[in-house]
Amino acid sequence: MDPSSGPDWTGRLRRVQAELEAQALGALVISSGTNIFYLTGFSGSAGLLLITRDETRLLLDGRYELVARQTVEAGRMAPVMVSRVDGRYDQALGQTITWLAPRRVGFEAAQVTVATLRAWKRAASASEWVETDGVVERHREVKDAHELDILRRGGQRVSEVAARLGTIVRADVAEREVADAIDRAMRDAGFSRPAFETIVASGPHSAHPHARPGDRRLAAGDLVVLDFGGVLDGYCVDLTRMAAVGAIGSAAQALVDGVLAAHAAAVATVRPGLETWKVDRAARAALEARNLGDAFVHSTGHGLGLEIHEAPRIGRIDPDAPSVFTPGMVFTIEPGAYVEHVGGVRVEDDVLVTETGAELLTTAPRELITV
Amino acid sequence: MDPSSGPDWTGRLRRVQAELEAQALGALVISSGTNIFYLTGFSGSAGLLLITRDETRLLLDGRYELVARQTVEAGRMAPVMVSRVDGRYDQALGQTITWLAPRRVGFEAAQVTVATLRAWKRAASASEWVETDGVVERHREVKDAHELDILRRGGQRVSEVAARLGTIVRADVAEREVADAIDRAMRDAGFSRPAFETIVASGPHSAHPHARPGDRRLAAGDLVVLDFGGVLDGYCVDLTRMAAVGAIGSAAQALVDGVLAAHAAAVATVRPGLETWKVDRAARAALEARNLGDAFVHSTGHGLGLEIHEAPRIGRIDPDAPSVFTPGMVFTIEPGAYVEHVGGVRVEDDVLVTETGAELLTTAPRELITV
Repeated sequence: MDPSSGPDWTGRLRRVQAELEAQALGALVISSGTNIFYLTGFSGSAGLLLITRDETRLLLDGRYELVARQTVEAGRMAPVMVSRVDGRYDQALGQTITWLAPRRVGFEAAQVTVATLRAWKRAASASEWVETDGVVERHREVKDAHELDILRRGGQRVSEVAARLGTIVRADVAEREVADAIDRAMRDAGFSRPAFETIVASGPHSAHPHARPGDRRLAAGDLVVLDFGGVLDGYCVDLTRMAAVGAIGSAAQALVDGVLAAHAAAVATVRPGLETWKVDRAARAALEARNLGDAFVHSTGHGLGLEIHEAPRIGRIDPDAPSVFTPGMVFTIEPGAYVEHVGGVRVEDDVLVTETGAELLTTAPRELITV
Repeated sequence: MDPSSGPDWTGRLRRVQAELEAQALGALVISSGTNIFYLTGFSGSAGLLLITRDETRLLLDGRYELVARQTVEAGRMAPVMVSRVDGRYDQALGQTITWLAPRRVGFEAAQVTVATLRAWKRAASASEWVETDGVVERHREVKDAHELDILRRGGQRVSEVAARLGTIVRADVAEREVADAIDRAMRDAGFSRPAFETIVASGPHSAHPHARPGDRRLAAGDLVVLDFGGVLDGYCVDLTRMAAVGAIGSAAQALVDGVLAAHAAAVATVRPGLETWKVDRAARAALEARNLGDAFVHSTGHGLGLEIHEAPRIGRIDPDAPSVFTPGMVFTIEPGAYVEHVGGVRVEDDVLVTETGAELLTTAPRELITV
């Protein structure tokens, strides 16, 4: 596929329709907004996608129906039928399913709440409702040429912002102001919005992996965690770099050295066919070798794409959810070490699985930025 | 309660514990992040709250556990026990429930997905898992003195920004730039973040209720929908005003007049004890009387609070979800009318149900702002 030609909606829908066949489903209801966007190009705060083996129907209420119809006609969305919902979605879905009369209807078990399923079953009681697990997510995990083109551009741009952190981070400036400056730089770099709330965690706050930027002013001796991301053409990138305000103590330096070693070990381990938990193990082993195993309180990484956290997860072994690297997967590698009264360190890059190993999508220098 | 004394976590937890008794539950699992925040003051991207009749336990992973424990000790969160989760939440929850051994465990049916419930049942199979419906949301619907203090301040501040729209909206400026200027004004007014993506929909875009601000420049004869909101101390306010660039045609003027009439009719109808759908009916009747019934393609309003859309819903009659106004409810009234090739109009205010009627929390002039 030519990456410049836009999303391959037709191919994506065809792959889902093949799964209907494989799972003996007459229809599949997609209710995840992200999955609907991936398959059709539609984005809104409501909407249901009903896929059968030979048609695709988007149910939308009056706020969205007309624009979606026009967008389909203009070729800027997948060629789906658009049906207007007046009133409740569960009733409209029930009417459509009752009319199509599939014997088995699949739904997304990880997306549909117990209450919603109850309403759907009531509205279309003649069909059997069948749990499906990650039908669309499995395809989203492996990025196509169009998506990789966007993610590479995003990685490049966030790296350019990261390379300028030395001019943004300063002593005596509040965390919140540093975060604002990063957000402005990301916006100027072309990102449509932050992928999450920017983290600037200084001094004692750095020991908390999910600290929020506050009024604390950066002071001499601080470690500073700078974790930020942006959304470009719908896709998320995510990066963390470390700064120090002047000289830091030896315990803090040991965290920096340990995390950089863990990061390098993790990146070096990535290759197609490998179980994803082995990359987590490599990062953890590098920190354990320095007696910092207990300080690494989170997973090594998470998939990136239309969502900031998606499959694959790069964490401890989980026999219930085996996961293996495939070329085209994009995820973060972000080991960290956090010690109360010393501080915290995290270094994060975005990685693509290639045919032979890993390609780093983010490339800014990883070394501690001393300001 | 003294509004200055902070959230009444103890009272909120006590009211939920009373419902455990009423529903014959030995324990209740709260998994909605917003509900956890409402009951305890904890906010994070993960966490489970387990409430029994005599204790409240917050299960948190290593990213959050330590800070939460310190925050509880400092009295800036509800006095809950904090338990650390190493590994998977479903397994940690299962172990705790197996140890407490309640006969019946409630869960939030509108929050828990089918896949998560399956995992919880597997991890704690000795208990009976029981659907509950809006246990916390029912309490959240009626705001206490602390919450009303915040919402009144929020309403005041967003009104002050709205009163300055005449200086922000200008011909030849792109929608996106107008949205940026509104976002800056909201931030300067003290809001921590937008409550949703600001809508600036001009000319033909105004006919689409959920248009996103784009590169289109405002031009003579445009109707412009300006819909924005902010989060103050965790609570959302939401407001829409209309501008016109120079003179507009008579069809556009008829939309403005109809929507203002619908807005006034809806506000005048609010009183405690009334079914909420009757306010929607009042707004709709005013537009139908002007042959604009079909142009009103959405509901009249939605509850406001920790979420930008929460109960009550102010829409058409729904026998499955009866809803009656109670003093302390806060919601939007936002009738609209959208006609292709003419444009769209929406006027929105935030309303509090009082002992006798309605108090408007947003007070900026509602008239069309001509620039």
